[in-house]
Amino acid sequence: MKSIPIILLGCGGVGRQLLHHIISCRSLHSKQGIVIRVVGVSDSSSLLVSDDIMLSGMRDEFLAEICRAKSAGSPLKSLLNHGHCQLYTGQDALENIVSIASSLGRSTGLAVVDCSASAETIGLLEQVSSLGCCVVLANKKPLTCGIDDFEKLVSHFRRIRFESTVGAGLPVIASVTRVISSGDPISRIVGTLSGTLGYVMSELEEGKAFSEIVRAAKSLGYTEPDPRDDLSGMDVARKGLILSRLLGWRINLSDIKIESLYPSEFGPNSMSTEDFLSKGLSQLDVKLKERVATASSKGNVLRYVCVIEDSRCNVGLRELPKDSALGRLRGGDNVVEIYSRCYKNSPLVIQGAGAGNDTTAAGVLADIIDLQDLFA
Amino acid sequence: MKSIPIILLGCGGVGRQLLHHIISCRSLHSKQGIVIRVVGVSDSSSLLVSDDIMLSGMRDEFLAEICRAKSAGSPLKSLLNHGHCQLYTGQDALENIVSIASSLGRSTGLAVVDCSASAETIGLLEQVSSLGCCVVLANKKPLTCGIDDFEKLVSHFRRIRFESTVGAGLPVIASVTRVISSGDPISRIVGTLSGTLGYVMSELEEGKAFSEIVRAAKSLGYTEPDPRDDLSGMDVARKGLILSRLLGWRINLSDIKIESLYPSEFGPNSMSTEDFLSKGLSQLDVKLKERVATASSKGNVLRYVCVIEDSRCNVGLRELPKDSALGRLRGGDNVVEIYSRCYKNSPLVIQGAGAGNDTTAAGVLADIIDLQDLFA
Repeated sequence: MKSIPIILLGCGGVGRQLLHHIISCRSLHSKQGIVIRVVGVSDSSSLLVSDDIMLSGMRDEFLAEICRAKSAGSPLKSLLNHGHCQLYTGQDALENIVSIASSLGRSTGLAVVDCSASAETIGLLEQVSSLGCCVVLANKKPLTCGIDDFEKLVSHFRRIRFESTVGAGLPVIASVTRVISSGDPISRIVGTLSGTLGYVMSELEEGKAFSEIVRAAKSLGYTEPDPRDDLSGMDVARKGLILSRLLGWRINLSDIKIESLYPSEFGPNSMSTEDFLSKGLSQLDVKLKERVATASSKGNVLRYVCVIEDSRCNVGLRELPKDSALGRLRGGDNVVEIYSRCYKNSPLVIQGAGAGNDTTAAGVLADIIDLQDLFA
Repeated sequence: MKSIPIILLGCGGVGRQLLHHIISCRSLHSKQGIVIRVVGVSDSSSLLVSDDIMLSGMRDEFLAEICRAKSAGSPLKSLLNHGHCQLYTGQDALENIVSIASSLGRSTGLAVVDCSASAETIGLLEQVSSLGCCVVLANKKPLTCGIDDFEKLVSHFRRIRFESTVGAGLPVIASVTRVISSGDPISRIVGTLSGTLGYVMSELEEGKAFSEIVRAAKSLGYTEPDPRDDLSGMDVARKGLILSRLLGWRINLSDIKIESLYPSEFGPNSMSTEDFLSKGLSQLDVKLKERVATASSKGNVLRYVCVIEDSRCNVGLRELPKDSALGRLRGGDNVVEIYSRCYKNSPLVIQGAGAGNDTTAAGVLADIIDLQDLFA
């Protein structure tokens, strides 16, 4: 049995789903000769560490209890007396992870799994990586920081995996990496990289008003709590930046041209979420209706796309032929087209659900399993 | 620098293209800290082994010379005095590979790369695998033998890669493997897995006669020397068998229902290739024209597909909606749809060029690079 110890950072929707997947895959993984041991779990305020990091890690019943508690809004510290574990906060928590990394990293391949949405984890991830640990991310922020920090983080490239940062569980990063390592130079990547904006564009095409669509999407749970986090294009830009950097480009988020679906005077600094939803949004209806009509009059549809080409990454609305791969896309599916020497006239296309905790966590788990080859 | 020694079996189109890729990727791989050393190359009659298997392997100029000679139809043995190497034939060749595998296998991760089209390599591949070597295949035959031999061959699953056996360089196997290892159970795979039959179906849809299309495809180099090797569906069935076995099904080629595009009385045992092309083919025109017309009258198109579902793998013609992913497919592109819990209503789709020496060899090279994690 190959044992893979992990520390999970972040107990939100993706983190909890990952714990569920780990539990429900026990017998599958056991058949493959693998056992994943969760030795630590953190939320934004504290870290729980199993008393038994060398052997079994946290018991499945306790992991399930963590999921229930976090799902109900309780902090991790409320669980201290339920499992055989210790609680650490602040600097102590960080030092404890580094200490576990030092003792387990090189020998057993401890994986630190970042399912948080924090920009603050990068220092820790760099440190554990330099200690020989593996790093798996669903969190885009550490990969979209300044280029120097990024390069430090990925300097042990074989020990870091981040498939779920682009297109959730879709094998986009794995495919781009394969094409590159086969010596087939990539000239262009075009994709719709947001399930939320895919849904919005599909619904606009049906003739619905932008404000109605966004309010419906929010109530269906398709958007972030503040829908402007999706509508700003920043999330798509982060994904575009990760893909651009995979191609070896030394660019930053500030180098990406991002088209926001709302004007800056409607931004979070000038308007509350409530005001944006109740007043701001409907003022955008006419302009977007016009853009859809203009596109339609030419036989085109409007899509929110990321285009990576000629050392530039642009993110925004584009008119595309109705019968193109991107134009045919409906609802929340993502599609990514990769053009290279081998895929020149007709691109390598990857398409499917690009959002959702289930598929995102499944992608994280596949990354964890993929790292086993690094350790005997 | 991590050194990856390889022995190449087969110097046909794919094998030669692989050698070209290895040479042209030298600087790319060197940046990634990798050097691929070709220590041996075999064709159907003999094996050339470098005098220097421990350090550098064959020089690039010599590899280029091998490609030129094989491309011109010369046997490997004609090159004996050109490089610093030894020639072995028959049983000596096999024993030599096993001896290299014994000395390099466990320590450095020798990869034996099967780019032949032979059914005879399986014994050797099993043997080197049991000695700790890696195995990379573009050759489908060793993976489509009896289930017991297959299971023996893949028993060291992390040390065998065979991406290029299905959809050439398309990341089909990698994606299926990722979905499975993430605990997301696959319920259905549907795909067009033959560039040749994709071309034939597209052209039939244009109203051309089957016999004309096949003759044109042959003269364009799209088919095997005997086009019946494509038209029999056997090649698609082999790919379907590999995918089915990836799902854990213990089935054999004989369990697959295969629809041939010609009747058995036109088969290789009853008719020469020449007779088939000049007389047999045109007798099939009317029937296929009718099937296309029947499909078209219902708004459908005819596609040659592989359907893997409910423990069954079927291969043959299907009527599909014109505007489905498979129905829209034109020319030689392959498309594979994977249905699972995460990709239930809307499948995970992988599409792109599924044939050609360039993309097949690129897939083999990506597999070789992917194996490096197994060795320090």
